Amino acid sequence: MTQNIYDNDAFFSGYSRLPRSVEGLDSAPEWPTLRSMLPDLQGRSVVDLGCGFGWFCRWAREAGASHVLGLDVSENMLTRARETTPDPAPNPVIVYDRADLERLELPAGSFDLAYSSLALHYVENLRALIKSVHRALVPGGHLVISVEHPVYTAPDRPGWIKDGSGREIWPLDRYLDEGPRSTDWLAKGVLKQHRTVGTYLNLLLEQGFALSRVVEWGPTEAQIAQYPQWAVERHRPPFLLVSARR
Amino acid sequence: MTQNIYDNDAFFSGYSRLPRSVEGLDSAPEWPTLRSMLPDLQGRSVVDLGCGFGWFCRWAREAGASHVLGLDVSENMLTRARETTPDPAPNPVIVYDRADLERLELPAGSFDLAYSSLALHYVENLRALIKSVHRALVPGGHLVISVEHPVYTAPDRPGWIKDGSGREIWPLDRYLDEGPRSTDWLAKGVLKQHRTVGTYLNLLLEQGFALSRVVEWGPTEAQIAQYPQWAVERHRPPFLLVSARR
Repeated sequence: MTQNIYDNDAFFSGYSRLPRSVEGLDSAPEWPTLRSMLPDLQGRSVVDLGCGFGWFCRWAREAGASHVLGLDVSENMLTRARETTPDPAPNPVIVYDRADLERLELPAGSFDLAYSSLALHYVENLRALIKSVHRALVPGGHLVISVEHPVYTAPDRPGWIKDGSGREIWPLDRYLDEGPRSTDWLAKGVLKQHRTVGTYLNLLLEQGFALSRVVEWGPTEAQIAQYPQWAVERHRPPFLLVSARR
Repeated sequence: MTQNIYDNDAFFSGYSRLPRSVEGLDSAPEWPTLRSMLPDLQGRSVVDLGCGFGWFCRWAREAGASHVLGLDVSENMLTRARETTPDPAPNPVIVYDRADLERLELPAGSFDLAYSSLALHYVENLRALIKSVHRALVPGGHLVISVEHPVYTAPDRPGWIKDGSGREIWPLDRYLDEGPRSTDWLAKGVLKQHRTVGTYLNLLLEQGFALSRVVEWGPTEAQIAQYPQWAVERHRPPFLLVSARR
């Protein structure tokens, strides 16, 4: 099973205080771009891989989705998601369920959209997951995902440093050495799987997806005007966003 | 017009002494991977965008191509290509022609493969070129290209540096700031166009190409055993290789 860091109390406590946890999608700076990559959800069936607190599931319901399955491995996340999702019984649009993305089984041809935000870089056996998701989509169905960008996950010591002239640079190394990276973010020893951009894309292509759009996300000028501390993120994108179709 | 650095005598003289110039494809370390992305060329029509000394054109002829058009903006390169390509008149398989990739016009639906090795990062108006190439391919036709990898072209000061612990790192910055980069390589002020991986791929997708494979190339273990000085290239890929179909 993927390291279930969200059920580590210290990590969960820190994560719960992030703007994107408290305020939801609108405080996730990459959300406007990710949203622009989504199909019309009116009457559509959606699965969210790594649904966290359920912000996207609730957004999908508002956008008209007929059925939303939110999956997460963390009991902490699912409990919070359920608490914050009032849904009229007996036919709720949103169902939350516990699932290990390392061995996901979904009914074939049953979703119009598979969505995943910042979860797949935790998954070791991504090929099996992509295969399972491809099978679970209807023909023509959409996949829209974000992951931490490979230039962000690659370095042995991720963090800005100054070069000889005092300019801020990102110390890229080990980009082509794929595999686990242990970082200290909200807790010690958080495990992520580093993969190259090419590997993410080829895993999709090999399973039969057709790529639609690939975005290496960084803050816009308007966002930097509002949050000047984000300017440095344009030196190396923090997120990779991909849309594809079965 | 793209800066025609190959007709700069100092640059051309230096370039002519590189292993890939003297010994051809087999001394280009990314060639085995690029070759693996090519379709069967037997009886096929090929255009090479930025053909240089004609190594690929001659290889394509050996591989059975029926017609090969080698295009380059550099008179120096074309002269050398013609000198080193004995071809039986009156019906030569290979034709070399001068062309500015900024305003390329090709007959519609006339090629089975468009190939380009390490040339497109010099082109300013890549959208127009991709559009022109898409139109020039037959339906189902192949595009196989290599460019300098965006993490390689991005930095203001490209070159390995040591971090605080004396470890070699690549000083990534300005990745999301697309546009010209001036570097000193074989000559001063060589102009390249920096684009992100996403931009390269989206330009292809927007013109109607379906992506087949995306490779961020680095040396294999066998290559590093033979050339230990290449090991550092695994910290950040020097080349991006893409195959796609019309």
